[in-house]
Amino acid sequence: MTNHYDALETRSPSEREADLFKRLPDVLRAAAKAPAYAERLKGIDPAAITSRAALAALPVLRKSELPALHKAAPPFGGFVSSPTGSFGRLFTSPGPIFEPESAVDDPWRGARAVFAAGFRPGDIILNTFSYHLTPGGFIFDSSARALGCAVIPGGPGNTEQQFELIETYRPAGYSGTPDFLKILLDAADKTGRDASSIKRALVSGAAFPKSLQDEMKARGVDAYQNFGTADLGIIAYETAAREGLVVNENIIVEIVKPGTGEPVTDGDVGEIVVTTLDPHHPWVRLALGDLSAVLAGQSPCGRTNMRIKGWMGRADQT
Amino acid sequence: MTNHYDALETRSPSEREADLFKRLPDVLRAAAKAPAYAERLKGIDPAAITSRAALAALPVLRKSELPALHKAAPPFGGFVSSPTGSFGRLFTSPGPIFEPESAVDDPWRGARAVFAAGFRPGDIILNTFSYHLTPGGFIFDSSARALGCAVIPGGPGNTEQQFELIETYRPAGYSGTPDFLKILLDAADKTGRDASSIKRALVSGAAFPKSLQDEMKARGVDAYQNFGTADLGIIAYETAAREGLVVNENIIVEIVKPGTGEPVTDGDVGEIVVTTLDPHHPWVRLALGDLSAVLAGQSPCGRTNMRIKGWMGRADQT
Repeated sequence: MTNHYDALETRSPSEREADLFKRLPDVLRAAAKAPAYAERLKGIDPAAITSRAALAALPVLRKSELPALHKAAPPFGGFVSSPTGSFGRLFTSPGPIFEPESAVDDPWRGARAVFAAGFRPGDIILNTFSYHLTPGGFIFDSSARALGCAVIPGGPGNTEQQFELIETYRPAGYSGTPDFLKILLDAADKTGRDASSIKRALVSGAAFPKSLQDEMKARGVDAYQNFGTADLGIIAYETAAREGLVVNENIIVEIVKPGTGEPVTDGDVGEIVVTTLDPHHPWVRLALGDLSAVLAGQSPCGRTNMRIKGWMGRADQT
Repeated sequence: MTNHYDALETRSPSEREADLFKRLPDVLRAAAKAPAYAERLKGIDPAAITSRAALAALPVLRKSELPALHKAAPPFGGFVSSPTGSFGRLFTSPGPIFEPESAVDDPWRGARAVFAAGFRPGDIILNTFSYHLTPGGFIFDSSARALGCAVIPGGPGNTEQQFELIETYRPAGYSGTPDFLKILLDAADKTGRDASSIKRALVSGAAFPKSLQDEMKARGVDAYQNFGTADLGIIAYETAAREGLVVNENIIVEIVKPGTGEPVTDGDVGEIVVTTLDPHHPWVRLALGDLSAVLAGQSPCGRTNMRIKGWMGRADQT
């Protein structure tokens, strides 16, 4: 199976669904050790939450509420029971919202997204997300390293110094925003610097229209997009099939009527709600405020997980 | 031994010396797999290099030569035999010199320096070195994480956002330049922000005179300095004894007559030459161009390794 990261990606949908919902009760028990979840999940029997219908009856946690909740009970609003110092790194993102990075391998769950974009162990990746204060840089750094790639922590800006690194290390690929990749390629063309080693890219953090993807392709860079957040890491990622974004393993994605916790009919546009199966830092029905829709059918790449259409706007702007 | 990182730090000097020079021949054999070392060590029998006198007969590699050597045979001048993509991260520093980070725990050998500065597992550290392009940020990040601390990757600048993180996560300590610590403390005083959780610091990258150390102490921050480079990581570090800097374990430090490979008499000022016992990225007699001197006797903190007086200037400026 050299085209898939592991066997989880190609198991039958029913097998995946059974696995996720078998593990969910223990995650809910772990979550309830944190005071804010204990309050929100009061009266719920974790053992009974073993289906999408049962999950849909639990309250959603709106991401837009997190800044006030975090401020009232720093740092994590009472949603995390592990000691703050037991995490690996500690971040913030606009709001402010505060995010811990678990001290585990691949804490942002992205190695399989890096793989799906065509990277392989031993590849060198230039990572131009910022490593300071916010988790962006580390989401892609730790994902690439978990796959076995070497990372050049370029950060944003310093284009001159980035070219020095690109020409010396000759990275096979890039991670960062699509816009900064275009800036780098344009600067290379204009100043005669050599960025020709960069053959593929994993982009995020901004819109990536088909026209820009095609332009990249014409310039020799096969660029894949993904959808993630500073709270959750990688939620869904593009594959060689180029049909929507495949949902990540080990998380449960629901699409709900914006502002409610009620699932929409498959295919309808709604708000993305994510439940993670990480007992150290559980998220139970985090409503992101971002819109998407399920894409029917299975990806021709062989991955069997649910596909979403990509980012379709903000729920609070509809 | 709660005051020492491990038993290596308190073994007898003769035991340490025997251990280092027993391991050296294998390191030289590993080094010679890289073409530039093969050339430089031609005719040398690694099995015979088991004493300081024998080591002193090997050629020194001048750090000032590295930019030209790296440029002639990118990325590492032929001094590294492992594939570039097998490393964890890839950096540059002024010159330019190119530095790989080994994909191992504590690649910059700093966990014991963080421990010696009083940090313990579970402590939260605000790290204000830059994580982009150069290895400074990761030297302290990986050292603190290897000890089991949680790190806030603050980076330099963005003081306002740093205070938001300091007030929320209440870090026990700081790593960064002494100058930026002073900037943060001054700004806290001036604007009424709360940096009072910061009780200790590990500083590097700039002079740290006793007067500034005393000022920090008067403001509630117990600050320890260390000496390191982007090539080697942590070479020597201050301990609670406050007498010079104790040389790191698993490296061999020599003090030589500047511009030569010839050891000075103990106590005389000379150039620092370092040999690392890391077969993945060996350094054999790297002459740094920095001056120091051996401080006689043993540290009252119980660590038995050689002590140096700290940074005493540049060899090329004498």
